[in-house]
Parts: sequence; C-alpha cells; structure tokens
Amino acid sequence: MIANLIAKPSRLIIGLMSGTSLDGVDAAIVKVEGSGLDTKTELLSFTTVAYDDTLREKLKELCSLEHSDVAKVCGMNFYIADVLADAAERAVREAGLTMNDIDLISSHGQTIWHIPAADPADWSLVRSTLQIGDLSVIAKRTGKPVVGDYRTADMAVGGQGAPLVPYADFILFRHEAKGRILQNIGGIGNCAAIPAGGLPEQVVAFDTGPGNMLIDQAVHTLSGGAKSYDDGGQWAAQGAADETIVAEMMSHPYFSMPLPKTTGRELFGKAYAQQWIGRMREKGLSDADIVGTFTAFTAHSIARSYRDYVLPVMTVHEIVVSGGGAHNRTLLAMIAGLLPEQTVTSTDALGMSSDAKEAVAFALFGNNFLFGVPNTLPSATGAPVATIMGKLALPG
Amino acid sequence: MIANLIAKPSRLIIGLMSGTSLDGVDAAIVKVEGSGLDTKTELLSFTTVAYDDTLREKLKELCSLEHSDVAKVCGMNFYIADVLADAAERAVREAGLTMNDIDLISSHGQTIWHIPAADPADWSLVRSTLQIGDLSVIAKRTGKPVVGDYRTADMAVGGQGAPLVPYADFILFRHEAKGRILQNIGGIGNCAAIPAGGLPEQVVAFDTGPGNMLIDQAVHTLSGGAKSYDDGGQWAAQGAADETIVAEMMSHPYFSMPLPKTTGRELFGKAYAQQWIGRMREKGLSDADIVGTFTAFTAHSIARSYRDYVLPVMTVHEIVVSGGGAHNRTLLAMIAGLLPEQTVTSTDALGMSSDAKEAVAFALFGNNFLFGVPNTLPSATGAPVATIMGKLALPG
Repeated sequence: MIANLIAKPSRLIIGLMSGTSLDGVDAAIVKVEGSGLDTKTELLSFTTVAYDDTLREKLKELCSLEHSDVAKVCGMNFYIADVLADAAERAVREAGLTMNDIDLISSHGQTIWHIPAADPADWSLVRSTLQIGDLSVIAKRTGKPVVGDYRTADMAVGGQGAPLVPYADFILFRHEAKGRILQNIGGIGNCAAIPAGGLPEQVVAFDTGPGNMLIDQAVHTLSGGAKSYDDGGQWAAQGAADETIVAEMMSHPYFSMPLPKTTGRELFGKAYAQQWIGRMREKGLSDADIVGTFTAFTAHSIARSYRDYVLPVMTVHEIVVSGGGAHNRTLLAMIAGLLPEQTVTSTDALGMSSDAKEAVAFALFGNNFLFGVPNTLPSATGAPVATIMGKLALPG
Repeated sequence: MIANLIAKPSRLIIGLMSGTSLDGVDAAIVKVEGSGLDTKTELLSFTTVAYDDTLREKLKELCSLEHSDVAKVCGMNFYIADVLADAAERAVREAGLTMNDIDLISSHGQTIWHIPAADPADWSLVRSTLQIGDLSVIAKRTGKPVVGDYRTADMAVGGQGAPLVPYADFILFRHEAKGRILQNIGGIGNCAAIPAGGLPEQVVAFDTGPGNMLIDQAVHTLSGGAKSYDDGGQWAAQGAADETIVAEMMSHPYFSMPLPKTTGRELFGKAYAQQWIGRMREKGLSDADIVGTFTAFTAHSIARSYRDYVLPVMTVHEIVVSGGGAHNRTLLAMIAGLLPEQTVTSTDALGMSSDAKEAVAFALFGNNFLFGVPNTLPSATGAPVATIMGKLALPG
C-alpha cells in the first residue's frame, strides 16, 4: 500500500492540526509532490472545525493535574480521534472530493501534556509529550492510512519535540535573496528565521512566548464568556496599552531563557492571565486597555525575541505572519511598530493561507514518513540529529 | 524499508508482551516465514524481564482513578518504552545475537485502562483501551522499526480489542484431527477453542475469568509481601479448598455473561481478593486453605466456561495450557479433575514454551502488519470484520 503511494507522481494528503489553544481542528487538503527538501505542496482546500464548548471544557480538564485521570485519557484518545476523522471527512466534502481521492491523512493530535525536563521529584515523570487522537480509530473510520503522533520521536532522539513547523517553513518559504522570519501566532507564538539562501542548519526557531493565548483568555473573561477572541484586534484598538505593566510582564524568565526553548499553557495559561487581569483592574485599566495591554505584551515578546536571538545572527527582510494572530490587525501593527527595519506581512501575501500553514506542514511531514525521509529540523527542536517522526496506522 | 523486509524469505522479529499482571516483559525472538494463515514461526529464544517493585507500584497507581493523572500517563508512556527497549536488547544479547540481526520489534505495550462499554455518566468515556510504551521511543532506542499498540484498531472496528492471541493460536496450534482448547493463564485466564480441522470463524475465544491474578494477590497478602506467586502450586497443595466458598465465588455475574466477553483487573482485582480473604479468615480457613480455595475457584471458572460455551458446540480432545499458570501443578491437576474427558497438557509438550506463547503471537501480529494482512480473529473479539491492527514507528 505504501509502495503504491510513493510511486505516484503526487499524493493528496489531508493535514490535521489541533493546537494547544483547544479551539478546534484545522484540516488542509494538500497536493504533495516529491519528498524531503524537494517537496512541492499545493493547498487545494482548507477548513476549520471548531470544538464546541463542552468538548473544550472536557479537554481543559484533561490538561490539568487535578481533574484528569487515566480513564479520561483512555476515553478522550478515542473520542477526539472521531472528531479528527469528522474534520477530515468535512474537509473532503467541502472540497467537492470523496475519500477515494485521498491518499493519506496526517494528524498532529491533541496535545494534553508535555514534560520538557525530567521532574526531580518523581522518577517516572521523564522528558515526554502526550498527543491523543488514536491513529487506528481515524484510519478505520476513514478507510485511509494515517500517520501521526509526531512529537514523541523528536523527544526520543533528544529534541524538545517542538517547534516542528520550521522544517516545513524552510521547505516552503526559504528565499535566495531575502531573510525571512516565519512567525506563527496560534495559542503560542513561534518563529522560524531563515537567512537568505540559507541551509537547514542555519534556521533559528523557537517559541517566542504567548501567541493568542493571553489575549483570548482576557477577552473570554472580560466578555463574561460571550467572546473567545478579539476579532481583528478591534477591542485592543479601542484601548491603550499600559507600558509599565507590559515592561513588568516582559520580566518573565521565559524571555531570558537560552535557545532552544518552547513553552505552552503551563507558563502562560489561565492562572497567569487572571493574575494580570486582577493587577490591571486594581490599577484602574478599562477592559479595552486590558486587552490592549495583553496585545502589546504579545507584540513585545515577539519583537524582543527577534532582537535577542535572531537579528544578531542574520539579516531579516520580512516577517511573515501566519495562524489566527495574522487576523489581529492591532497586533500586527504593534509588531510592525516595534520592528521598523522589517516588512511585516502574512503568508497569504505569499500565496499560502495564513490559517492553513500548520496543517499543510503536517501533510508534508506525513509525506516524508511514507518515503522514510526525516521530517525534523534539529536546529529548531534542539535534537542532535534529524529523525523520521510519526507512526503509521493502516485501514482495512 | 518495509518493502525490503517483506521481500526476505524470513524475518527475525522480537515479540514483546507485558500483561495486566504487571509482572514484567516477555521477549521472544521469533523467526517468521510467510504471513496470514500461512505463517510459520520458530522460537529462537525467550526471556522475561521482571518489573521491579517500585515500577510495579507506580504502574498500579497509574491504573487507578484515584492516583492517576495526565502527567503520570505522559511520563510513564516514555519510561515504560525504555523498559521495553531494554527487554528487547537483553533478549538479543542473551540469544547471542545483535540488533543488526533483528528485522522488527512488535510490542503489545502496557495496558493501563480499558473501557469495554461507553459510560452513560460521562459522554467522553467511550469504548476504548489504552496501552502505553511509545513506539517511537522504542524505535529510536533500538534502531529498528516497531509495530505495536494493537488493541485500539480492533475496538475501532467494533470489537472488544481482546482476546487477541486466539488468532495466533489458530495459526500455530490448529489440528486436523484434534479439537483443542488453548488456555492461557496469565493475570487473566483466556481460551481459544479450535475444532478439529476447523475454520477461523469456528474458533470460540473469550476470557474465562481470573488467571493467576487472585492466587498471586492472596499469596502476596498472606506472605506479607514476601512472595508474589505460588511457586508450582505448592502452597495450595498444602491446604484444602472450601467448596462452599468456591460455589459462592462462582455466582459472580461474569460467568453468566454471554460471549464475546473479556475481563481484567476491574472485576477480579485487589479489592475483590481482599474481600474474599477476609471472608475466608472469618470462616477459620488456614492460609494454605485460602490459597487452595482461590486456586480451586480459578480451576472451576475455567472448567465451567468450557462446559457452558465450548463443549456444547465442539468436541474437545486436548486442553493446552500456557502462561505462568502452566507451572502451577495444583491448578492443572484441579482443571484435569474437573474435565475427565480431556487431556490437560501444556504448549511445551507441543514444542512451544508455555511462557513464550503470547510474545510469539505478537511477533506474528507485527509480521502481518508489514504485509498489510489482517491480524485479528473476529470470532474472538466480537468485531464484525477482521482488521489490520497496529501502528508502525520507524528508526532513523
């Protein structure tokens, strides 16, 4: 079956991405030619299936030490696989295709925990990561081979298991004459900086800090749950950022940590947001000011990351934003204001939907797996070697 | 890589089995020819690596609602994968081989939860099963392709995800002239009854009930933790079973449930054992009587299972016992006493180590996966169709 797939001149692959923001599943249908550094992709269609609130709350429980247990992990590993299969089927339908047209599904899975460093207090809490959404459940439901559960392989060879997308960024967006930073703004912000005409090992990639996570949390809290994100950055635009508080937030130790580094809900989650909302209310900030301050913090965390870790080692011409944050005009304007030497644009301007980029990356990873070709960038994950991430489940 | 493996006339596969008894990992090195119903296996070597008590206690915590959480699942999924890789490496060393000689590793993984039917009280607790021991971690450690995490695929197509070994029993032990029951006695007891000259769909397979689980628990409790099993059944042989209590235990509803059926630690675990130990002590039974009574209960549960579900539909000539229980002479004698029409023997007498059989079965499942051939027996798991179980992780 796999031999037949790699013999084809191109493959139609569904990339499924479900991020730490727990907002839903992105599904991209991608035509993929070649493999490895010579991969060519063409995005045929893209859809997002939002998780409903009930599911999101259940997933949040599962992502907490207090409310999780082994039964919930067991059940949700199957439940969310069905949600992922639903998303793949919906993507196919919306594209006017049928599953018969599809060669492979590639699924990131839902991250529910990540242990970046061994816990000295418990020998069983070794470096590890946990993505759920059973691959066999997806394969049997859809009748298609499924590759997924990627991150564990990179951790197994000594990497952090993140960020993964920079490998695809390098393949899809490297430029002979322009230094580019690919900045994704999902729940978390992460970047891949690629020097003009650069080699894979010259890519500098890391998590810049919070992406939309804090802004979303603030909007959710301040709207009493009525809104889940700041549409277009309109709310932030009505307020003014409190620069003193932004400076205090920037003293978070994450921003001084050396590369490679990744972060997640552990550092910039709900508790962190609530603490600062409390602080800002005490200080008399309006709701719009509060959203504006979180937005400014996010912009500063990105710009400072570049100044500290990227600009000293390469010339950068363009910042290319993707992810939900690409739609936040206030955030983009703030980033542009902090980086006057660079052009701030989005992947859309380069012909790739900014929402779809991560899902496209996973299609590309699955394609490499079929060819037995590594799909990691050690300079991004900190692993000593590139490796073939992923596990394959078969239909039938 | 996979194409090269299936082109070879035979493959050396390490089968790794770690059962619900949490006693350790069985590792069989098996020479495998062919695939599907035409598979031929030759056991080259076999070793068992016992879990130490610290690990066993940690796993027991993970198998409980009260003491488990998402971080522990995340960490142990990696930790136990290293233990499994260690076992594979030790098996190779003890066989006088090197990993270069090995083509594939096939790993069952450690079951930490199983939800046989959806929980009406929580929509996220769907039918599901959870085996840990990350396949990529094993693949990267050993440098070998790894297939594993089998059970989810059978559940995904509507089966119970168990019992799996009857598929291998049929291939390895079917006989033209003799009806055989393959009885494995691990933590749980399970059987596969194969009529003389029978077809796969005529196999009757199910969990008979407790295997060594209750006997081991009683021995552990009564010895104050000094012993973990009744070596050779010597302790039970010194006592007398209380037949009244055995009859009461046989009223457990599991024994009246229709096929297909499977059970685990949920029904016959520590709490169940302790309750009956208390009852027997009140009645004045000696420690040897108590061990003897649990042993007799186990024997009765097996014999009654045959009388109710197997003997009405086929003629049986031989009971072929495998698993740790094959070494319990008192248990075997009790089973033989209850089944005077049949010969009770062990797989050893048929040329296959009774300890190794399950690990050999998993080597065979991994081999089928490579060929894209189903490796389930729907008559055993209750699934409507046979399916290809397993997920493949690649080295390199």
